[in-house]
Amino acid sequence: MRSSAEDRSWAAGTSEVLLGRYERVRAQTEALCEPLEVEDFVVQSMPDASPVRWHLAHTSWFFETFVLVELLGASRVSDPLWGELFNSYYKTVGSAFPRPSRGLLSRPTVREVLDYRHRVDERIRERLEGCGEEVDPELAARVTLGLHHEQQHQELLLTDLKHMLAQNPLQPIYAPPGGDSPRPSGSGGRGFAPVAGGLAWIGEREGGFCFDNERASHRVFLEDFELGTDPVTSGWYLEFMADGGYERPDLWLADGWDRVQAEGWRAPLYWSAGEVPGEWREFTLRGPRRVEPSAPVVHVSYYEADAFARWAGARLPTEAEWEHAARSLEAPLQRGTMLEDAALHPLGLGSGEGPLRDLVGEVWEWTASAYLPYPGFAPLSGSLGEYNGKFMSGQQVLRGGSCATPADHVRLSYRNFFAPDKRWQFTGLRLARTAGSAVSHSG
Amino acid sequence: MRSSAEDRSWAAGTSEVLLGRYERVRAQTEALCEPLEVEDFVVQSMPDASPVRWHLAHTSWFFETFVLVELLGASRVSDPLWGELFNSYYKTVGSAFPRPSRGLLSRPTVREVLDYRHRVDERIRERLEGCGEEVDPELAARVTLGLHHEQQHQELLLTDLKHMLAQNPLQPIYAPPGGDSPRPSGSGGRGFAPVAGGLAWIGEREGGFCFDNERASHRVFLEDFELGTDPVTSGWYLEFMADGGYERPDLWLADGWDRVQAEGWRAPLYWSAGEVPGEWREFTLRGPRRVEPSAPVVHVSYYEADAFARWAGARLPTEAEWEHAARSLEAPLQRGTMLEDAALHPLGLGSGEGPLRDLVGEVWEWTASAYLPYPGFAPLSGSLGEYNGKFMSGQQVLRGGSCATPADHVRLSYRNFFAPDKRWQFTGLRLARTAGSAVSHSG
Amino acid sequence: MRSSAEDRSWAAGTSEVLLGRYERVRAQTEALCEPLEVEDFVVQSMPDASPVRWHLAHTSWFFETFVLVELLGASRVSDPLWGELFNSYYKTVGSAFPRPSRGLLSRPTVREVLDYRHRVDERIRERLEGCGEEVDPELAARVTLGLHHEQQHQELLLTDLKHMLAQNPLQPIYAPPGGDSPRPSGSGGRGFAPVAGGLAWIGEREGGFCFDNERASHRVFLEDFELGTDPVTSGWYLEFMADGGYERPDLWLADGWDRVQAEGWRAPLYWSAGEVPGEWREFTLRGPRRVEPSAPVVHVSYYEADAFARWAGARLPTEAEWEHAARSLEAPLQRGTMLEDAALHPLGLGSGEGPLRDLVGEVWEWTASAYLPYPGFAPLSGSLGEYNGKFMSGQQVLRGGSCATPADHVRLSYRNFFAPDKRWQFTGLRLARTAGSAVSHSG
Amino acid sequence: MRSSAEDRSWAAGTSEVLLGRYERVRAQTEALCEPLEVEDFVVQSMPDASPVRWHLAHTSWFFETFVLVELLGASRVSDPLWGELFNSYYKTVGSAFPRPSRGLLSRPTVREVLDYRHRVDERIRERLEGCGEEVDPELAARVTLGLHHEQQHQELLLTDLKHMLAQNPLQPIYAPPGGDSPRPSGSGGRGFAPVAGGLAWIGEREGGFCFDNERASHRVFLEDFELGTDPVTSGWYLEFMADGGYERPDLWLADGWDRVQAEGWRAPLYWSAGEVPGEWREFTLRGPRRVEPSAPVVHVSYYEADAFARWAGARLPTEAEWEHAARSLEAPLQRGTMLEDAALHPLGLGSGEGPLRDLVGEVWEWTASAYLPYPGFAPLSGSLGEYNGKFMSGQQVLRGGSCATPADHVRLSYRNFFAPDKRWQFTGLRLARTAGSAVSHSG
Repeated sequence: MRSSAEDRSWAAGTSEVLLGRYERVRAQTEALCEPLEVEDFVVQSMPDASPVRWHLAHTSWFFETFVLVELLGASRVSDPLWGELFNSYYKTVGSAFPRPSRGLLSRPTVREVLDYRHRVDERIRERLEGCGEEVDPELAARVTLGLHHEQQHQELLLTDLKHMLAQNPLQPIYAPPGGDSPRPSGSGGRGFAPVAGGLAWIGEREGGFCFDNERASHRVFLEDFELGTDPVTSGWYLEFMADGGYERPDLWLADGWDRVQAEGWRAPLYWSAGEVPGEWREFTLRGPRRVEPSAPVVHVSYYEADAFARWAGARLPTEAEWEHAARSLEAPLQRGTMLEDAALHPLGLGSGEGPLRDLVGEVWEWTASAYLPYPGFAPLSGSLGEYNGKFMSGQQVLRGGSCATPADHVRLSYRNFFAPDKRWQFTGLRLARTAGSAVSHSG
Repeated sequence: MRSSAEDRSWAAGTSEVLLGRYERVRAQTEALCEPLEVEDFVVQSMPDASPVRWHLAHTSWFFETFVLVELLGASRVSDPLWGELFNSYYKTVGSAFPRPSRGLLSRPTVREVLDYRHRVDERIRERLEGCGEEVDPELAARVTLGLHHEQQHQELLLTDLKHMLAQNPLQPIYAPPGGDSPRPSGSGGRGFAPVAGGLAWIGEREGGFCFDNERASHRVFLEDFELGTDPVTSGWYLEFMADGGYERPDLWLADGWDRVQAEGWRAPLYWSAGEVPGEWREFTLRGPRRVEPSAPVVHVSYYEADAFARWAGARLPTEAEWEHAARSLEAPLQRGTMLEDAALHPLGLGSGEGPLRDLVGEVWEWTASAYLPYPGFAPLSGSLGEYNGKFMSGQQVLRGGSCATPADHVRLSYRNFFAPDKRWQFTGLRLARTAGSAVSHSG
Repeated sequence: MRSSAEDRSWAAGTSEVLLGRYERVRAQTEALCEPLEVEDFVVQSMPDASPVRWHLAHTSWFFETFVLVELLGASRVSDPLWGELFNSYYKTVGSAFPRPSRGLLSRPTVREVLDYRHRVDERIRERLEGCGEEVDPELAARVTLGLHHEQQHQELLLTDLKHMLAQNPLQPIYAPPGGDSPRPSGSGGRGFAPVAGGLAWIGEREGGFCFDNERASHRVFLEDFELGTDPVTSGWYLEFMADGGYERPDLWLADGWDRVQAEGWRAPLYWSAGEVPGEWREFTLRGPRRVEPSAPVVHVSYYEADAFARWAGARLPTEAEWEHAARSLEAPLQRGTMLEDAALHPLGLGSGEGPLRDLVGEVWEWTASAYLPYPGFAPLSGSLGEYNGKFMSGQQVLRGGSCATPADHVRLSYRNFFAPDKRWQFTGLRLARTAGSAVSHSG
Repeated sequence: MRSSAEDRSWAAGTSEVLLGRYERVRAQTEALCEPLEVEDFVVQSMPDASPVRWHLAHTSWFFETFVLVELLGASRVSDPLWGELFNSYYKTVGSAFPRPSRGLLSRPTVREVLDYRHRVDERIRERLEGCGEEVDPELAARVTLGLHHEQQHQELLLTDLKHMLAQNPLQPIYAPPGGDSPRPSGSGGRGFAPVAGGLAWIGEREGGFCFDNERASHRVFLEDFELGTDPVTSGWYLEFMADGGYERPDLWLADGWDRVQAEGWRAPLYWSAGEVPGEWREFTLRGPRRVEPSAPVVHVSYYEADAFARWAGARLPTEAEWEHAARSLEAPLQRGTMLEDAALHPLGLGSGEGPLRDLVGEVWEWTASAYLPYPGFAPLSGSLGEYNGKFMSGQQVLRGGSCATPADHVRLSYRNFFAPDKRWQFTGLRLARTAGSAVSHSG
């Protein structure tokens, strides 16, 4: 295991490079808001989600609090009460306005929040420009962390917005249809690729930026196994549904089955039965459409992913299997659909020469692993230690990134995590199975 | 008893008069929105309240549905889905978007809703202008009903907005302080005026406009009683609080005491302890301020009003007592603070020559009467029959109007009603007691 | 109005008479428990209900607390903690174990509770025997109150027990079938009898025992009206159901309709669809059986009673109308099925010469009146003042008594009360209508 | 990995041996009920717990269903409805009466349930006696599974009973004080013992009986680590409490802190502040007593265990670390207090020569591992596959057994599991830390 707490070499670089990245990421967040009306910034459609305006403010609060005030000793650029409003969950920093109530606030206005963003930007810019060539590593590290934090919120901004629009019988459209021409052919493979086991190194160990939860890098013993060549498609998932997938308790974890019954789940989130019998439609950020059978299934919970895998005579991979398989690839890893592609929905590009396609991008892939600390895990020191570690219970790890993830945000060691019943993220799955265990499934 | 279902004589009048009233009321609604930012129109702070934008749309939907489409056979001026979004509770008209979810909608935008209002206004204007001198009584009746409906929503718009602003730690101000100079002297009387009983006529019987729930006019036998000369003031209520009013179960109805415990009530809604011990502050539409002891106490529930009365050795009047006393007054009835005074908070003007002051205006006065049908009650025919009758369970009657009620909206027979635990309306109380029962109270 | 607070003349009588009544009522409670197994005494099937053992203990606690300790200054005969366990809601007496948790207690055992009852009985007996001819009026009044209190709990014991047994898929039987032979003929009339209005005296004024809520006796002005000759039968109610009664929101109060939807009500409580289409079965204390069309419908809520009345083109009577009609009867009032008949279910005996049958007994009849204080109401002094007055919100009055009410417990002025959604009591209805308003109903 | 699904060699044995074990285990269950009153068998104090009578019936239902009926083709010995009442969660066997409602049933009576037990016993006895020397391995396997199942319910019977008794202000005692003399000395060590890492075999691989979740046996790579020599004591836990353990969010997982706030946790379950400041008392099956500082702390949730470990500058061990350490011990493993010791509470005997004491017995030790399938996990075939696998989400693994666990029930590979917020089991903790990471803790 290597200790990484104090290693900042990855943060080295000129202020020009850092500032360039800062400007780009911050501008990207605002660009995502361009299609929106003022009203769209305000609504919170469930406790898990936040209003768009809150994301804009919170990401700025993060720079203000952890860079300007805490690290650089600058004075706040906002009303002290804003600190409470836009603190997410950092209890050691002060109290936080209750998360489920973020939608109760009509003020500050969108305009005031954008002004706040720009004041923060100005101060950060001044500081970075004043650094000359050599940026202090701690400053660079915190700014970099703040930018990755902001990129996480770019994805959340879109998924929260999608959830909110979906509540509206008017089915408002975030972006016009198009940008998502289904790929011509050859996707949706249901094959499995063999992966040799052994003692595998897991976790970030190349010295680049990563979150604290990706360390310490450590060894895990794995048996040989097989990993699905592609994410599971909507077409395959429709077969599961047609085979009574949502009516058979034997396919489900007990908690999952309880949820199916309590919530009346009959299909992935955002799916609805079309007027033609057997036809399914889904709500997307580009409007409602027919479910595309060749594209990865998305907006399924861990419970659904697990039940599908059981039905298919397979299982979900552990996060160590996933990461080891990805690192073992001989061909260069090519990514599937990501935020920059502006499709806003998984397409299943099936790119890549190697046997494993779309490992990165398209959909976050639920793994069989609970989100727990790695051996030797050490949270960041101070309040930033609350970033990840305190959520290490009751959640499952997801890997790979989605169609709403910025391409330069993820890594093979990246650990995303959500509770097993959540469906509003761009979550899907890839199967695994123990080597030699191929069986015909129950379908 | 007189049947009123078909009597429309009160609706007689020239189209010019009716149109004048239409323009005035509709303009008043929009004028109330002038101080608002777009964001303020969107938020719903609790299931009881609605977003401002929803009030703007729903009142227009009312004219569109019950006047233009149902009565006049015109085509809709809005998307059919809007009918569902802005239907409040008229189940016989079609489905209604769930009330607690009104705050989940960011669209249609405020601009689109205002356009919708204006399209409805245009059509109504055309129809009324086309009537010549004699407006069809049914048309006049429905337009008049729609305008009274709109005035109810003017008050709700303000109380819902106040509740929403009060959730915000920034304590946004709807209107600047002022406009509410405390009256110079002589108010807050704690006296009682004798009222002679007998067989009293209750309910609307003068042939003017009224809601269906104010009829049939009927006789009620009343013993002699005494009615408080003024609404109970905040100063008096502070004595109740100081005497342990919120800590003594013997003062409360069982349901009320349960609520006190469950909600942690220690004072009226919007009150908070000031920094000086013993000082109380309250949030108003004109910002936070010190509680004014001489003004009527406001934002108390029926449970609190009832407990206060018991503490004071008195009781609340029945609605028949209230109405009979008001009708028995020799001096002309003068109103207290109402919407047109723009105080946005009860002042307690104590106007009027007679012994009973501020019967109308200032605060809605909780009565001891459950909201039940009068003998001979007949709801309006058709869908409009859902307006009042179906709410006749679980609520208490309030009388008199408040500082947020338009002056030409109420009558002595007017029956307002809310569930006994509600506090976000401008609700207060006036005491009564049985003749000759004066006793020293337990304080 | 007459003040009754201090009038105890009704309590006059020899100790022998009082003791005789004491022995009889107390023995009756235990007789009701004879068919039970120990396990049956323990279970609480919902927060509204209490375990049988709790009823046995609480009624004894009542005598211990209000007669032995408070009035006579005797020492407790039970552990001080029992005082908390068996206090129902008298907050001025001390804390009470939470009502919804009464079923969490396995101790004291049934045997211990019966011993406690008998210790209390012994002390009461000693005191009454020691009085000689003249019992102190306050002692006589409290013992009498305690016995009426116990009779109320006899009925609750049966209804709570029935609810508990009904949860059990084994459908245990309290008493064997029989004892309830349907009456031979002639019942279930759907007629209306005219009643002359005027200024009617309502409330107890003959000087007998009554609860505080039946006073002060006072005058109410009533228009002429008509009252249903019989309780509404199950057969008539089945027509309401067949006509879509549970599917038409226009028939329901808003709160009622919400409840229908939330609880999935499709029939009275304890009814279930039989195997033959259209057949309905009901669970009774004598086991499951086919619904008898000629018997009064029972286990309906106020909401259902109100909806049925609206469907039938009628309404529910006010409690003043009910009482005035009963007092106006020329023929002697004969009672329907009551506890002593051991039918344990309404039969609809249709006895009585007069036009109104089964006014007393069979089913409690929901009235259109909210449970509110009468003019001049004065609660009992001291802790016993909590007996009735503090429940005067959110409930409806029921009149007449049921098949589970002891015959010497009710009076024409007797006011029972339950929240409008409750169905586990033996509750039914009788229609009323305004004179001359006969219309064909919507069925 | 070794497949174990069909290996029944561990079940070999004469019918005499098996029957002996059957008689012993079944009798033990009834012996646990000897101190109880009939009333104690009926109550369910929370949805997690079941009435004692239900445990008696369910364990018999298990033999009836999976041995007599399913395996041997015998006819049921109970009413078919009992099958529904006493099915816990085997959805493939039929419907199950809702778990939270088990306390609503007063029937069948305790006597009837005991008769049922004895009928089942008789049939099983007949079958085993009829086997001769060689018992069919599948029969032996199912009977053995049924006995281990029954032993699990022996522990649950006691913990559920304890929870129920603790709700009662009378604080009833299951067994008289005594039987639990605190050990004379030398316990409560706070040391750590080094354990060498490497590639460790985890899971059952010795061919004895185990649950399906203990297989497949597989290799896990472990770094060197240190394991606490003893379970954490109440005395040590009191230091955590005194140091603000329940007031410092930085010590807690986010979910744990939410629970602390929501439930008002300030100490382990069943602890209450004594009358002397600083003194803590706890409710035990032998009555209330002062907390014994030298005994293992018990009735803490995973959240509390985790927070304590963080406060102490350590962490919880993974289940692989725990099992590997236990298997690495040179000295023979000696057990701490278990069910047979009849202490009914952890004493902390500190027996054993080796460096690790009380690994088995005393308290179930929370581990840092989520309850997930082992590599190669294959659930039992048929309905018995529901036994364990479907609970593999949202729970943490506990190891070692407790003072309420039968001594011949557990193994070093035994995986117990509960949700992280549960506290009513005899759950405690043992610390671990990464080799060389010793730091002074925050206390």
